[in-house]
Amino acid sequence: MDAMLLPANRACPIAGTLTVLGQKWNLLLLREAFLGSTRFAEFQRIGIPTATLGGRLDALVAAGLLERQAYQAEGERTREEYRLTQAGRDALPILAALAQWGETHLDLGDRSKVGFASGSTGRRAHLEFVDEDGNLVEAADIRVARAS
Amino acid sequence: MDAMLLPANRACPIAGTLTVLGQKWNLLLLREAFLGSTRFAEFQRIGIPTATLGGRLDALVAAGLLERQAYQAEGERTREEYRLTQAGRDALPILAALAQWGETHLDLGDRSKVGFASGSTGRRAHLEFVDEDGNLVEAADIRVARAS
Repeated sequence: MDAMLLPANRACPIAGTLTVLGQKWNLLLLREAFLGSTRFAEFQRIGIPTATLGGRLDALVAAGLLERQAYQAEGERTREEYRLTQAGRDALPILAALAQWGETHLDLGDRSKVGFASGSTGRRAHLEFVDEDGNLVEAADIRVARAS
Repeated sequence: MDAMLLPANRACPIAGTLTVLGQKWNLLLLREAFLGSTRFAEFQRIGIPTATLGGRLDALVAAGLLERQAYQAEGERTREEYRLTQAGRDALPILAALAQWGETHLDLGDRSKVGFASGSTGRRAHLEFVDEDGNLVEAADIRVARAS
């Protein structure tokens, strides 16, 4: 994104995050990582050209969202796998927010293909706005302001 | 995005939403709309080329996120302004999730430039995962699954 140095964008965390994550494929690669993909061949199934995939994974490693680890299955050569870092895991609300909008506003056929649930209770989870005391705040009540 | 018809993406609400919103500028234009911009000249301050802005606004109208309304200031000619629709307002968690990640993981200098707060209480608000009964769920406990 080119316009990051303009006053309206310079310190905007939305614009900054889009610089890191807004590139084509990055969010779909993170989706696959959350679904359990760790290997090059697993990430390929999102339909990214093989020639592009290495560069996108490198960029996510450089941005600190994935880390590379060596692994060796018995009797095989050493390979690399890609694991979410804490910064990568912190992108989960971005994926959930995109999914929630799509489930509400797109015609996805009978079903959605990504679900978010508590691992400990198994119950479905979604995003809500919450204030500093943990009280839910209706989205319609949220005001956005340029902080000074 | 080209790969939308692959099995991994076809009914994925994340991929679908990126098709609508992932284009350069769209999320920054929505940010400006939430900050109160309604007029062409106000949207220009994000640094989008003037030749591009009309087309991006048209696309957001076509996608149902903004609607065009005529307005007339006293003594001036009729102009058009752009207002968020319900679908546009429903994109607020996407912006908040991008902002939260940026505030945590990017060096934005002294401050962030976008704040989210309850309009009725004035208290800052952020996104949390919540289950169907309204109980907060730690992000680390969230599991992502391809729904069948």
